[in-house]
Amino acid sequence: MASIGIVGGTGYTGVELLRLLATHPVAELAVITSRSAAGLALAEMFPSLRGHVDLRFSEPDLGRLAACDLVFFATPNGTAMKMVPELLAAGTRVIDLAADFRLKDPGEWEQWYGMPHACPGLLEEAVYGLPETDRSAIRAARLVANPGCYPTATLLGLAPLVETDLVDPESLIADCKSGVSGAGRKASVGMLMGECGESFKAYAVPGHRHLPEIRQGLTRMAGRAPGLVFVPHLVPMIRGIHATLYARLRARDPGDLQQLFERRYADEPFVDVMPAGAHPETRSVRGANQCRIAVHRPQDGETLVVLSVIDNLVKGAAGQAVQNMNLMLGLEETAGLSSVALLP
Amino acid sequence: MASIGIVGGTGYTGVELLRLLATHPVAELAVITSRSAAGLALAEMFPSLRGHVDLRFSEPDLGRLAACDLVFFATPNGTAMKMVPELLAAGTRVIDLAADFRLKDPGEWEQWYGMPHACPGLLEEAVYGLPETDRSAIRAARLVANPGCYPTATLLGLAPLVETDLVDPESLIADCKSGVSGAGRKASVGMLMGECGESFKAYAVPGHRHLPEIRQGLTRMAGRAPGLVFVPHLVPMIRGIHATLYARLRARDPGDLQQLFERRYADEPFVDVMPAGAHPETRSVRGANQCRIAVHRPQDGETLVVLSVIDNLVKGAAGQAVQNMNLMLGLEETAGLSSVALLP
Amino acid sequence: MASIGIVGGTGYTGVELLRLLATHPVAELAVITSRSAAGLALAEMFPSLRGHVDLRFSEPDLGRLAACDLVFFATPNGTAMKMVPELLAAGTRVIDLAADFRLKDPGEWEQWYGMPHACPGLLEEAVYGLPETDRSAIRAARLVANPGCYPTATLLGLAPLVETDLVDPESLIADCKSGVSGAGRKASVGMLMGECGESFKAYAVPGHRHLPEIRQGLTRMAGRAPGLVFVPHLVPMIRGIHATLYARLRARDPGDLQQLFERRYADEPFVDVMPAGAHPETRSVRGANQCRIAVHRPQDGETLVVLSVIDNLVKGAAGQAVQNMNLMLGLEETAGLSSVALLP
Amino acid sequence: MASIGIVGGTGYTGVELLRLLATHPVAELAVITSRSAAGLALAEMFPSLRGHVDLRFSEPDLGRLAACDLVFFATPNGTAMKMVPELLAAGTRVIDLAADFRLKDPGEWEQWYGMPHACPGLLEEAVYGLPETDRSAIRAARLVANPGCYPTATLLGLAPLVETDLVDPESLIADCKSGVSGAGRKASVGMLMGECGESFKAYAVPGHRHLPEIRQGLTRMAGRAPGLVFVPHLVPMIRGIHATLYARLRARDPGDLQQLFERRYADEPFVDVMPAGAHPETRSVRGANQCRIAVHRPQDGETLVVLSVIDNLVKGAAGQAVQNMNLMLGLEETAGLSSVALLP
Repeated sequence: MASIGIVGGTGYTGVELLRLLATHPVAELAVITSRSAAGLALAEMFPSLRGHVDLRFSEPDLGRLAACDLVFFATPNGTAMKMVPELLAAGTRVIDLAADFRLKDPGEWEQWYGMPHACPGLLEEAVYGLPETDRSAIRAARLVANPGCYPTATLLGLAPLVETDLVDPESLIADCKSGVSGAGRKASVGMLMGECGESFKAYAVPGHRHLPEIRQGLTRMAGRAPGLVFVPHLVPMIRGIHATLYARLRARDPGDLQQLFERRYADEPFVDVMPAGAHPETRSVRGANQCRIAVHRPQDGETLVVLSVIDNLVKGAAGQAVQNMNLMLGLEETAGLSSVALLP
Repeated sequence: MASIGIVGGTGYTGVELLRLLATHPVAELAVITSRSAAGLALAEMFPSLRGHVDLRFSEPDLGRLAACDLVFFATPNGTAMKMVPELLAAGTRVIDLAADFRLKDPGEWEQWYGMPHACPGLLEEAVYGLPETDRSAIRAARLVANPGCYPTATLLGLAPLVETDLVDPESLIADCKSGVSGAGRKASVGMLMGECGESFKAYAVPGHRHLPEIRQGLTRMAGRAPGLVFVPHLVPMIRGIHATLYARLRARDPGDLQQLFERRYADEPFVDVMPAGAHPETRSVRGANQCRIAVHRPQDGETLVVLSVIDNLVKGAAGQAVQNMNLMLGLEETAGLSSVALLP
Repeated sequence: MASIGIVGGTGYTGVELLRLLATHPVAELAVITSRSAAGLALAEMFPSLRGHVDLRFSEPDLGRLAACDLVFFATPNGTAMKMVPELLAAGTRVIDLAADFRLKDPGEWEQWYGMPHACPGLLEEAVYGLPETDRSAIRAARLVANPGCYPTATLLGLAPLVETDLVDPESLIADCKSGVSGAGRKASVGMLMGECGESFKAYAVPGHRHLPEIRQGLTRMAGRAPGLVFVPHLVPMIRGIHATLYARLRARDPGDLQQLFERRYADEPFVDVMPAGAHPETRSVRGANQCRIAVHRPQDGETLVVLSVIDNLVKGAAGQAVQNMNLMLGLEETAGLSSVALLP
Repeated sequence: MASIGIVGGTGYTGVELLRLLATHPVAELAVITSRSAAGLALAEMFPSLRGHVDLRFSEPDLGRLAACDLVFFATPNGTAMKMVPELLAAGTRVIDLAADFRLKDPGEWEQWYGMPHACPGLLEEAVYGLPETDRSAIRAARLVANPGCYPTATLLGLAPLVETDLVDPESLIADCKSGVSGAGRKASVGMLMGECGESFKAYAVPGHRHLPEIRQGLTRMAGRAPGLVFVPHLVPMIRGIHATLYARLRARDPGDLQQLFERRYADEPFVDVMPAGAHPETRSVRGANQCRIAVHRPQDGETLVVLSVIDNLVKGAAGQAVQNMNLMLGLEETAGLSSVALLP
């Protein structure tokens, strides 16, 4: 068994991580720390865990965390960077589900997250945890930055096109839609059901923190910075991200696009290229560590449309984190991640 | 009082039309016909009308309809075109809420709607009922084709940019999201709450009937056919359309875009240009004959983002139909349309 | 015109009151005060009001409020009781939408609301604003306590049975279900869409503040204290209350129950007794000042089932407040309250 | 491995059964038949099964079904009774998820289901598949009638009280609320999201098919027929049943009710008695084969309130069916049923 620690875990990515770890064949949750919830049984906060998880939140304790094989941070941005150096020094591997180690450039991090980075020296070492583009680096990593939900759906959808230079990188548009759990589990007026139920809106059009993260991923794929427009929207549902991606073809005859996508993801256990003409629904991945993708060329025009769906809390957060954990600990990549999506 | 008839009206645009007419100061519903529901009290089918509407559905009867000042068709596509010529001949004005008279080219109509047009000779005369672009023609019209919901949101959002030739018409993308009432009130598996609740998807990416309608409207604005990509999506909510519109600027310095939009719609009672930086929510127009628009230029880049929201059943259907009726009958344009959106 | 003031109004009952007053033919909103939102335009907080209401929130100012014909309190419990005595002294009529004046017994108020009452001397004078039981007292009142949402649905559903002593008052059960707007518009984890969406639960089974209020109403009807069990539930929808009411018949042959209900409410503009066998839906009153009721006697047994639906923000709050205002100011009782429910 | 067949399976209980069997450690789906869907890949109808289930629907074929160790019927009422006798004769065990074998009295069946029973001789032998009351009979059964969703939630909630004769059986009220998936996956107007979204209603108050089923279960517990009132309601969510159960105590001092419930279910893997004062939420069992129960005695009165929640598709249908299959095949009762509920 592998001994696992969690820092934080009182939010939605936290409870999802707990759900996945509860039935993981190898990982064993040894300690979960939360300053605000110390002493509380997990199952008291999340009744869905009754009968499955017997642990209580405890006060943060570096020693107990360092004794784990791997520690997840399911904390607000800016927390992990304060504790990670010590854990790494103690030989503990770390996966941060927040944004602390996602951007390589500390200046950009400070600009988008509004605080100086506490350990900029680790940014270069940290591996961006998207297995479909960085599997071998993740296997060898001490520190993995678990990708954001919008970036996961967008990068997986665009990779086959951008990696092969089939589309103009200046033309990329990511029109993304997310369920409300993406906003986390903290008291706010804006996320009340009375406010966001039965309504739809865009938000953060001038600039969203996932923009530089997506841009960084695309830059690595394309070899140069792309011209990306990213517009996130809020959907009155709990789980799910749907990315509708637009890209202009460089050439009139780009070859067989369906085949391009199928080949790119042929060996990927968690990316499913749907049949030609398909329209993936977010519910088809609800609760599952899956990304389903369809590629379209409407009216045989010059603009491609890629549809990419994930569960923001699974392939967009906790599931991908478990996938990364499996890789880092030398386990079967799919261990604990084979449940079927909950439909309906 | 103006005497009004309705053909059909057992669907969602029908009950919405009935709601609006029930409190209209001048229009008086004289007859409503439905083959399938003949004999049934309106309030039996729609309990919300109890105490407001005392009428029963009756068998179709051209004579009684022709005696009205104006007849609405709230029928499936392909029904109005069979009855309209006789009504016009009898001197009755007609507003068709379906698609029969929206496209000018009968070949295009046949291609997208799968049947030959029954009275192609009327297509030229029919006025496309978007008051913000065709007010005077509507005032004089015998026959108005009430616009589709997606076209209304899209055309109002793009008009200021396309009419002034500020953007490249080859670059237009309309990423549109609709509540489920847009699919109508007919038994189907796909629109069960168990199927479309708590999920999000695109549909009809290869081609949707509103594509030629939007293209026709843009062509009139731009003076030439644009290169439009249109992707509709289904949102798990009942009412509302949100159009996220993308257009590439021709010039680096397009002038004051906020002012451009405000001026374009300064005198429009039913188009509200939101303050700079705003993100309109569909609920802000729920039940109201309003379109709210915001224009963004993210990251000061070359791609503009216009956000345009309507209630698909009101400004996207029945409300716009009443607005057109008011114009055709010489009434105050806003008569019966001044209710406030239902929020929350 | 009647000059109207509002204290508070940043919550859901507030915006609903503003919606109704915006189209009221006689009432004119002169001042709205809010300590927290002073200076903010109403339409900035609630975009649905753009184009309809031009006012800004102002600092509380007793003088300006006292100059109004009538002042609504749409404030948290415990606020109105501090300001009402001065307003009454100045000759201004008051309707409190909170609970400050609903209970006659100051001890009971303190027990359920956790604070001593600031002006217990006014409790006797305050009229409980349920027009269907107290119309003439409301007409003459200086101070009206607007009923709670659950009490309105429950009392209207039970009145015909309890007033006529047809049922055993020891047997009453009110199994009530409310949409989330009933919990108000304040930041909280429990009312996040991520928490209460797609889920259903009972709450406050040991005791809810509306229990003594309903009991007080029933006591007045029955002439003695009833044995009521009241269980509220939270429904994943925004608006609407559905009360399912159970009462045991005293006699095997209670006469024609349908007729009993129809006669009781024959002259009531805002209570609709549905046909025998009907099942009222909350959406049939969405946005409307209506209560729809159906009475059943399943399997011809001894237990009656009454179904009673209202929109918690309209007949359960702001609409009933406007109805009370109309009565207090000598206006047509239905003025400003004739809009049709928004369905779908 | 155990070889499993399914008849039907194109509805919601069907896809849920497929989801559970896909990860079951012992059961292996050998054949699934559907006249309407023959030839179609399961994963084409339910994309959530892509990568998990490779089977296609085939034409009904008694021989292939009879070769299975156990066959599930996930068909409309009235189908199983036509095929079951032959399967039993062939030595195949059967679990019917529909209602064909739930009622012992063929006359009652005919009355509520509107058709004569095709094999009344099997009704006596068929075991009602509620393991918490009939475990040993299920283990030995050839034919199990899988309980309805409302009966499961209601019977589990009332059993501790009725079995011990603590409450008056004439006083029982089951006020039940179900998500929309309970109505199945067939085209209908009433279950469109436009009809049942954002609304709440009771239905079938005069009489619902689950009434005789619950009554039969209570009769067995109590030793005599109870006086049950059963009112089902439709909740605008997809999954979940919440039963609010009312029962009048026989004695003022009934002893420790919390302990009564905890002891009754101490050894039950799938019934969770929540701590005193709890309010179970349906989401706490979403996707899980669990019933969570809380018992209340509000205001220390004579009426008890029991809150009982299940996922209607799992403990209320497919999960309970798998639990029954495990028992019938001599497997671990919890095999394939240990996943954690999906929250949020």
